[in-house]
Amino acid sequence: MGFDLKRRLAAEALGTAILVATVVGAGIMADRLSDDAAVSLLGNTIPTGAILVVLITIFGPISGAHFNPAVTMVFAARREIEPPAAALYVLAQIAGGIAGTLIAHAMFALPVLQLSESVRTGTGQWIAEAVATFGLVLTILAGLRFRADTIPWLVGLYITAAYWFTASTSFANPAVAIARAFSNTFSGIRPTDVPGFIIAEVSGALVATAVVGWMFADRGTSTSPITVRGAE
Amino acid sequence: MGFDLKRRLAAEALGTAILVATVVGAGIMADRLSDDAAVSLLGNTIPTGAILVVLITIFGPISGAHFNPAVTMVFAARREIEPPAAALYVLAQIAGGIAGTLIAHAMFALPVLQLSESVRTGTGQWIAEAVATFGLVLTILAGLRFRADTIPWLVGLYITAAYWFTASTSFANPAVAIARAFSNTFSGIRPTDVPGFIIAEVSGALVATAVVGWMFADRGTSTSPITVRGAE
Amino acid sequence: MGFDLKRRLAAEALGTAILVATVVGAGIMADRLSDDAAVSLLGNTIPTGAILVVLITIFGPISGAHFNPAVTMVFAARREIEPPAAALYVLAQIAGGIAGTLIAHAMFALPVLQLSESVRTGTGQWIAEAVATFGLVLTILAGLRFRADTIPWLVGLYITAAYWFTASTSFANPAVAIARAFSNTFSGIRPTDVPGFIIAEVSGALVATAVVGWMFADRGTSTSPITVRGAE
Amino acid sequence: MGFDLKRRLAAEALGTAILVATVVGAGIMADRLSDDAAVSLLGNTIPTGAILVVLITIFGPISGAHFNPAVTMVFAARREIEPPAAALYVLAQIAGGIAGTLIAHAMFALPVLQLSESVRTGTGQWIAEAVATFGLVLTILAGLRFRADTIPWLVGLYITAAYWFTASTSFANPAVAIARAFSNTFSGIRPTDVPGFIIAEVSGALVATAVVGWMFADRGTSTSPITVRGAE
Repeated sequence: MGFDLKRRLAAEALGTAILVATVVGAGIMADRLSDDAAVSLLGNTIPTGAILVVLITIFGPISGAHFNPAVTMVFAARREIEPPAAALYVLAQIAGGIAGTLIAHAMFALPVLQLSESVRTGTGQWIAEAVATFGLVLTILAGLRFRADTIPWLVGLYITAAYWFTASTSFANPAVAIARAFSNTFSGIRPTDVPGFIIAEVSGALVATAVVGWMFADRGTSTSPITVRGAE
Repeated sequence: MGFDLKRRLAAEALGTAILVATVVGAGIMADRLSDDAAVSLLGNTIPTGAILVVLITIFGPISGAHFNPAVTMVFAARREIEPPAAALYVLAQIAGGIAGTLIAHAMFALPVLQLSESVRTGTGQWIAEAVATFGLVLTILAGLRFRADTIPWLVGLYITAAYWFTASTSFANPAVAIARAFSNTFSGIRPTDVPGFIIAEVSGALVATAVVGWMFADRGTSTSPITVRGAE
Repeated sequence: MGFDLKRRLAAEALGTAILVATVVGAGIMADRLSDDAAVSLLGNTIPTGAILVVLITIFGPISGAHFNPAVTMVFAARREIEPPAAALYVLAQIAGGIAGTLIAHAMFALPVLQLSESVRTGTGQWIAEAVATFGLVLTILAGLRFRADTIPWLVGLYITAAYWFTASTSFANPAVAIARAFSNTFSGIRPTDVPGFIIAEVSGALVATAVVGWMFADRGTSTSPITVRGAE
Repeated sequence: MGFDLKRRLAAEALGTAILVATVVGAGIMADRLSDDAAVSLLGNTIPTGAILVVLITIFGPISGAHFNPAVTMVFAARREIEPPAAALYVLAQIAGGIAGTLIAHAMFALPVLQLSESVRTGTGQWIAEAVATFGLVLTILAGLRFRADTIPWLVGLYITAAYWFTASTSFANPAVAIARAFSNTFSGIRPTDVPGFIIAEVSGALVATAVVGWMFADRGTSTSPITVRGAE
């Protein structure tokens, strides 16, 4: 890494703050403007997918652009980040995420401090979060393996899809789940429901790490006609 | 290919599962949230297009990312995959697709096993499926010929368009059609209507293969100003 | 050109057919599914932008992917296509466009032959078509000058925007205008209103050609930090 | 720069005119067609994001494609543009922006000269504009540092997100704010509210410049796995 830990942590915190401000802020905007819940979800999905492409591109070269404790955990398990730095990353992500929620509230002239009352629990929701995070980690690790330059797009597009195909609208991120507990708006989650989400997310991430470990272990280099930029 | 057959089949099964989980899951989500059928279709289109870019990018280097028996058939006809492997690809795609339907049901807390009652039949629908698959195979073969690195985007964008311009919302994929027969939700198709769809899809694929065989057979290399990455 | 004229004309006809089938077909689908005209326009815009990226990528290396008599006229004026070939291009585009309309009708089980009754006339509409085509030609010529590899995206995105910011929903294409006269559906135009559109489109194209001729005539090569791929 | 000042100013004026014509024109179109304000905002967001990718790609090599006095001010502060040229850039942007509003009105057959009566004021709105412009400048400077070739996409996607996550729908541009004061339509802003927006925008831009100055100042070159195209 060309950047020192202080700057890497700042990038993780600022990036997670902007990500959460987008999720929460767009949720408030979309919910205010429409009576059709699918239109509101579109108004939440498109901004979130778009900002992920931006944030991963601009912070990736500094910190790796995790913005997500489940992702940092996976890289720690793969020994691609040292455990003390990983722990600090997670703290920066959580602090940044909460700050993002507060900024969104300030912009929309709402009480800055809130706690969500949105119930998000049950087996379906937990399966959904495990599937969502499984897919996210699969996307990141496979992307890094084959086309590292496209990671920002892959993650933005994956989350765009996962908002709709998972019953939980794909939080897929423990720091974002914690931050969303502080907003009693469209995108909120009741604090008591957060632990269930985090357990499901971590489970999905671990399964994805194992699947990728097996599936992508080949002897040589891929000779597929699809150009493998990351390996050039 | 740098990857063994076992991993290639796993990639086909997992990729088709995620694709179908997206089609079926986003269909359920969109249908639940909106009373406007066009909004629901947007909520189905955008996730499907997005996930195709992701899946083709991450599984392309392993298995070629067919996820579609009509596509595998085309590559077999062009002798780019050996017939026994092609047969196993098709089985993996069908099994993966059905698994994707079941996972979507589990996430949305619906009965896991269902059979669709959605009528999708008639000349218009069959013409639509033939046109849809014609366009898909044309896109893939022309993309491979001129800009192989853009295939994931081309397929994602093509399907985004075809959801709307074909009267059938463009299944264009026998494995996906079979999998969707197992879901009595927004994206389902009555089992008795599946054979008509498959015949139309295979017909469209064959015509596209013939057209491409003629149209792209030139003597030398293209000197068009549009850069031809795949040929570099 | 590495491709003979016969194949280039086939590419122009087939590409224009698919483009028009998308415009007309998506218009029918969107109009049937929604009571909200803006949702219908979104359901028309997104497929059209998406298919343009695909069609220009896959047919560009064969014919240049004009699909538009105004564009062919501009290239003839710049002596980048010989006049007899240009005339045949225009005929192929018109024939292909009409075929696209008929295919869309067949897919949606509508009478194949129709004439539009949609009134699209007046100064505002003509200014809009002139502006729309001005912008399209500017985009194409500037794109070719600086970033030829991005032309498919630039055109797809430009038309996505122009559907909304021009009062006419941006036909910007005489062949498409003629083809749309044959459809009494969402995207149709009354035959008597077509000449006004064509005159406005050609005017806008000529102004753009002049503006580009002046603006992009510099002495040396751009040294802007934005990488100029087309010039590499 | 390979282009003389006259052409650079023309590019700034024309680009800002097309940008504002898109914002105002798409606003009129979307507002006319829908009763759902979130659908209208989607119909404003998607065209604006799309046209930004186009305009920055085609004018970037000529003038740098600022289209925004706050951006020009940042480059002047970084001594990347000489002050007299910067002043002329700002004048060209303002003149072009106002022309864009008038063209939009002409296309939609509205009175060409208007003044907005839309109230856009208050602390929430000002925080939103500061945040919006902070993010825009961060995106541009970080993009230039790491992936200059992706700037058109980053800006288009950033604005796509910012339309929704900021309470002000992200003007983030003093020239656009002035131009929108001349339209009493969906996207207008009361003239008396413009100064508050401009102050907030300039503040956000200055903070972003400072943050970037610190965060991106590393000793060597990034060795992140994400390819840094701009530095190749």
